[in-house]
Amino acid sequence: MSDLRPTPEDRFSFGLWTVGWRGVNTFGDPVRPVLDPVDAVHRLADLGAYGVTFHDDDLIPPGSTPAEREAILRRFRGALDATGVRVPMVTTNLFSHPVFRDGGFTSNSRDVRRYALRKVVRNIDLAVSLGARTFVCWGGQDGAETEAGKDQQAALDRLREAFDLLCAYVLDQGYDLRFAIEPKPNEPRGDVLLPTVGHALAFIERLAHPDMVGVNPEVGHEQMAGLNFAHGVAQALWAGKLLHIDLNGQRGVKYDQDLRFGAGDLKEAFFLVDLLERSGYEGPRHFDFKPPRTEDVSGVWESAAGCMRNYLLLKERAAAFRADPEVVTALAEARVPELSEPTLSPGEGVADLLGEELDLEEAGRRGYHFERLDQLALEHLLGAR
Amino acid sequence: MSDLRPTPEDRFSFGLWTVGWRGVNTFGDPVRPVLDPVDAVHRLADLGAYGVTFHDDDLIPPGSTPAEREAILRRFRGALDATGVRVPMVTTNLFSHPVFRDGGFTSNSRDVRRYALRKVVRNIDLAVSLGARTFVCWGGQDGAETEAGKDQQAALDRLREAFDLLCAYVLDQGYDLRFAIEPKPNEPRGDVLLPTVGHALAFIERLAHPDMVGVNPEVGHEQMAGLNFAHGVAQALWAGKLLHIDLNGQRGVKYDQDLRFGAGDLKEAFFLVDLLERSGYEGPRHFDFKPPRTEDVSGVWESAAGCMRNYLLLKERAAAFRADPEVVTALAEARVPELSEPTLSPGEGVADLLGEELDLEEAGRRGYHFERLDQLALEHLLGAR
Amino acid sequence: MSDLRPTPEDRFSFGLWTVGWRGVNTFGDPVRPVLDPVDAVHRLADLGAYGVTFHDDDLIPPGSTPAEREAILRRFRGALDATGVRVPMVTTNLFSHPVFRDGGFTSNSRDVRRYALRKVVRNIDLAVSLGARTFVCWGGQDGAETEAGKDQQAALDRLREAFDLLCAYVLDQGYDLRFAIEPKPNEPRGDVLLPTVGHALAFIERLAHPDMVGVNPEVGHEQMAGLNFAHGVAQALWAGKLLHIDLNGQRGVKYDQDLRFGAGDLKEAFFLVDLLERSGYEGPRHFDFKPPRTEDVSGVWESAAGCMRNYLLLKERAAAFRADPEVVTALAEARVPELSEPTLSPGEGVADLLGEELDLEEAGRRGYHFERLDQLALEHLLGAR
Amino acid sequence: MSDLRPTPEDRFSFGLWTVGWRGVNTFGDPVRPVLDPVDAVHRLADLGAYGVTFHDDDLIPPGSTPAEREAILRRFRGALDATGVRVPMVTTNLFSHPVFRDGGFTSNSRDVRRYALRKVVRNIDLAVSLGARTFVCWGGQDGAETEAGKDQQAALDRLREAFDLLCAYVLDQGYDLRFAIEPKPNEPRGDVLLPTVGHALAFIERLAHPDMVGVNPEVGHEQMAGLNFAHGVAQALWAGKLLHIDLNGQRGVKYDQDLRFGAGDLKEAFFLVDLLERSGYEGPRHFDFKPPRTEDVSGVWESAAGCMRNYLLLKERAAAFRADPEVVTALAEARVPELSEPTLSPGEGVADLLGEELDLEEAGRRGYHFERLDQLALEHLLGAR
Repeated sequence: MSDLRPTPEDRFSFGLWTVGWRGVNTFGDPVRPVLDPVDAVHRLADLGAYGVTFHDDDLIPPGSTPAEREAILRRFRGALDATGVRVPMVTTNLFSHPVFRDGGFTSNSRDVRRYALRKVVRNIDLAVSLGARTFVCWGGQDGAETEAGKDQQAALDRLREAFDLLCAYVLDQGYDLRFAIEPKPNEPRGDVLLPTVGHALAFIERLAHPDMVGVNPEVGHEQMAGLNFAHGVAQALWAGKLLHIDLNGQRGVKYDQDLRFGAGDLKEAFFLVDLLERSGYEGPRHFDFKPPRTEDVSGVWESAAGCMRNYLLLKERAAAFRADPEVVTALAEARVPELSEPTLSPGEGVADLLGEELDLEEAGRRGYHFERLDQLALEHLLGAR
Repeated sequence: MSDLRPTPEDRFSFGLWTVGWRGVNTFGDPVRPVLDPVDAVHRLADLGAYGVTFHDDDLIPPGSTPAEREAILRRFRGALDATGVRVPMVTTNLFSHPVFRDGGFTSNSRDVRRYALRKVVRNIDLAVSLGARTFVCWGGQDGAETEAGKDQQAALDRLREAFDLLCAYVLDQGYDLRFAIEPKPNEPRGDVLLPTVGHALAFIERLAHPDMVGVNPEVGHEQMAGLNFAHGVAQALWAGKLLHIDLNGQRGVKYDQDLRFGAGDLKEAFFLVDLLERSGYEGPRHFDFKPPRTEDVSGVWESAAGCMRNYLLLKERAAAFRADPEVVTALAEARVPELSEPTLSPGEGVADLLGEELDLEEAGRRGYHFERLDQLALEHLLGAR
Repeated sequence: MSDLRPTPEDRFSFGLWTVGWRGVNTFGDPVRPVLDPVDAVHRLADLGAYGVTFHDDDLIPPGSTPAEREAILRRFRGALDATGVRVPMVTTNLFSHPVFRDGGFTSNSRDVRRYALRKVVRNIDLAVSLGARTFVCWGGQDGAETEAGKDQQAALDRLREAFDLLCAYVLDQGYDLRFAIEPKPNEPRGDVLLPTVGHALAFIERLAHPDMVGVNPEVGHEQMAGLNFAHGVAQALWAGKLLHIDLNGQRGVKYDQDLRFGAGDLKEAFFLVDLLERSGYEGPRHFDFKPPRTEDVSGVWESAAGCMRNYLLLKERAAAFRADPEVVTALAEARVPELSEPTLSPGEGVADLLGEELDLEEAGRRGYHFERLDQLALEHLLGAR
Repeated sequence: MSDLRPTPEDRFSFGLWTVGWRGVNTFGDPVRPVLDPVDAVHRLADLGAYGVTFHDDDLIPPGSTPAEREAILRRFRGALDATGVRVPMVTTNLFSHPVFRDGGFTSNSRDVRRYALRKVVRNIDLAVSLGARTFVCWGGQDGAETEAGKDQQAALDRLREAFDLLCAYVLDQGYDLRFAIEPKPNEPRGDVLLPTVGHALAFIERLAHPDMVGVNPEVGHEQMAGLNFAHGVAQALWAGKLLHIDLNGQRGVKYDQDLRFGAGDLKEAFFLVDLLERSGYEGPRHFDFKPPRTEDVSGVWESAAGCMRNYLLLKERAAAFRADPEVVTALAEARVPELSEPTLSPGEGVADLLGEELDLEEAGRRGYHFERLDQLALEHLLGAR
């Protein structure tokens, strides 16, 4: 096997909130100590990561004075400089504080909406100052437990208002920054606004500056709705809207697990890496996972290293799959390349279609040989070819 | 209680394939005899329905000669004339025949794609000749069991090619017809292209004639992905794309149940009717259900009548909910109307936001009283107020 | 409508952790102040509740000195005496503290298992001293994210060892107390031991004292696995094992929602109440819910009152359903009572079966009229008959 | 890699209905020709299978005359003799014919229940005559769409009556045959009786001859409820009730997919094979899958071969995982073997527990290193170690 040590060229990035997760959930108290962001940067650099990302509050505790904030930023920049770790993306915490209990951009409270916008604007300035080019927006508290309590069309109006304002601000400031919306179907709210990649892509088309906004799909979020993640990413790519991606693992339709990448649906992970690597996507491979509460600090770093190693293993296997002549033959027998041929030849129209006949019996008997193709993929995934 | 007998003004419609379903599935043989479409029209008229819809093959058995086809259509038109039943929508069967085993518009086989287009074009002519204004496209076989077998971006290209061609044909012919895409997450394929309302809305924006295409959401299809159906419909309305709707019932994330309307998630059905009736949507209330295999023919009609009765009951309760002064107060206390106020006042910008402060402690303590509001809705639904 | 004010005769009980939930979850900080258990008792009494329940740590904060513990208990008993509120059930917190991060009775750490047993034994003494007759055991942290980390058969051995020890202790002490196991499929662990009512019922049969152990099914926990809750309760009743019940609401397969009773699958709630009220079950109707984070303290009590009101409304409607002569006729037409007739007559054996013939054509045409029956149930539920 | 050609020693078996599935479902017509059972036997033998199984109707078309039946059996026995293929298990079709539209053993119709019993008794005689030792009972039509239509406790009474009668018959005849109940949560009925392995195990304990009855878990059926299949099998093994197993693939909570083994949740398949191979289970590895409708006959056999090859690949990897010294160390660090130590030492009791103390701080900090262990498993699965 080739050497699989991660390097910055692999463009792996991690959120401070991932390796720094302390393990608090509905049923459990914190199990791990606070992780200093500076330590996180050094440790991630040692592991071969390219970037680090954060929510404003991950780096600068709410309530910090301007002086404290400056001191924190100075130390943090120092760690970045010392390690060469980049900040390709920044995002905003619009969910932890009780003020966001009914959402941020779409809280029923107008003053909260204004506060949320203010918090984001300030965070945009910070993001740009650190060199980030992508600004992720996850609106997890923008949702409802009862349909009576949230006017969905008004919520979409307010969400559009928010993005239009933020895009205008970025343009005004001359920033080189794009927004990536992260969809999620539910949790912490019963139902969340923009529940899937599809809903987010559709929403973006109604904005004043759709070209400045794309999506940040997360493996587990789509799988929580039972959807095929690779298919969602493919549609985002098709729409030219894949700006960032959150890699992790999820085992089926249940609570948001945020397992390390590779630890969920393995076959889906294989096809995802296959798609990403062939797509021309050049953004970070960002891990948004939560090391399970059973882990101590050493387990946290094992988990982080596993995310990267699994990506590289899958990348290697996907490349071998595509290079295998048997696979090329099998793809042809499955008529996969034929789908890239336009259905109509140049100049053809409805009349041409109407004039021809298909032997339904014969075409109905035709097999597509997908089982052979899938078995080849599985064997490459298993390292058995 | 007010009289709840359905009338054509209620705009209820049924597919021939619903009341005519014979009960074949993976595990069971047919349990009911063939239903003559003419009988179906008369029976639906007796029950108070406004319209009947069909797949081409529901009405005209595949393999019919032109003469047979003419005879069938003559009888069918006769039944429509005699009863006043309308044909507001027509759709095409691109799934039953083995030729569609890998899909219609996105089959890997180019000749099948051409055949699918031809079948649709012919069916459009029929639809228009019967007065239909909406043409539903459900691509249930357009999907995959293995990611290796279907290039998703090519599939989206071919799907776009198909809709662009069909729109051009409709324009060429001067037809007054719009297309409504019906999403579904899976079944009969492992994963289906355009799995949710969101994905379909996003796809439409990339078409040559997006104004001619909208969606036909189906209750159970969104709920098979665990999504909130009323929220999906709200986003379709917000986008101006709700052209048609398929009403039925589903009990959670499982196989496609197609229960009668009201027999699935009842609270969701209440909020759906509440939304539809207040939205200005004027299209048919179309029932796409399957009377369970346990029913004989009399049970089929009980089931169909139940669909309509449940809609009317929910409509009555939703209206009472909205008219209740306690509800109006509770909505205000939940700040629901406040979400319709723009977050920024006219002329305001980022600077205005940055200049103000929010008392986080106070705003964080604020309760939203959604439980009271939801309880009021529930009691109206239960007829307990 | 009849008066629906709850009274102690309705046997409604609430956990201190329900109305006292502060709203901490993976994505959110606490939104409500600490609720004094004494205040909870008084408030529940005012609302008409019969009982209050708790985890040891809900009442007595971990780390309390013996003197503090005594003082707390004195105040709490005072509130019980003053209000007449009972403590029908007590349970143990084996999940919040980091020590339980890999479970309690089945932690891989033997010393933790011993600690868990010790914590439960002490809590049993407290439970009995307060008059509780049921002791609920929820082992939510007894699970795994990776199959490699937890030997399931060893875990079942340890779980059996724990229950055998606890039963022996109860017998030794001469206590009148039974254990009720609460199943759950997942969350907080990726997969939880004894995931459903069925698994728990099966496990109990392998204990030394199966007669002392039953189940405490929770609405949402079964529905998180897409299972029919009323069916699970029916099997528990059939096995003579329904010792307690946790009522709440869940909207489908997703994270554990703990909505107020009635706010989830309403039709299922109707049939559950119908079943419970006709079953002879005499235990508490215990609400294990979490008032959503959007609620302030007043919303908490609205939510608690709603749980009881919805139960009473559904009880009223279920009784009317059963009393309706049309329903009696419809049940007969659906052959429901026929299922209670043994399939073989007294004295009959295989030979008698083999000697007869069934007209398959005729019996295959037979309809079961379930749609009519279900529609009648729905209309009673809606208060429309 | 070692040679992985299947041999009869691997004990692989296939249902006639699997490779013979013609592809009929709710949305599609048959896509493949009828497969002669004799051809199936020869083909399976060529592929290295050990056994073939069937529903009565798979082998002997309903309505066959006694002479036809004899001729069919003669040919079939000839194929068995010629190939050495065994019939380790037989099952009964109590679902396809309309007569079973409300179930078999628990149909509301008493005459149908009697017919179902008769059909099974006759099939038992056939099974025994062909050497089968296991008789699988899947009651997929024993369920309900409405709770009102099926008295669950009466249904369990009738189901018990059926098994008690069948066990008595087997004892009377002196047959060496055991029954294996196959659970399923839903489909084709909205909710199915005995929805999971747990429910079936619990039911068995109430039978007159529980020792004669066990379970036949199916991968996809448990996963349709989001349950961990390996955990369910482990509980069946713990209860001494794993009599047979149905191997296939399922991708999450959705319709019953019956993919080939390995094509669903791959990691779960790995841990399942690991469990089975280490458990002492000596029964057949039975594949109950459906080659997708996209396949022609050649694809059917590719799919069948893939089932076996994937099992062997996973078996090889699981063995390597267990043999790896790093894994042994990692298991110890994760304290996995410690769970097999009884929590109490011989002679210890509650007093011993109460007398000791645990340092909660220290024990709470303890990490379990499951991430390292899971990563090792994943790398063995991927063939990367």
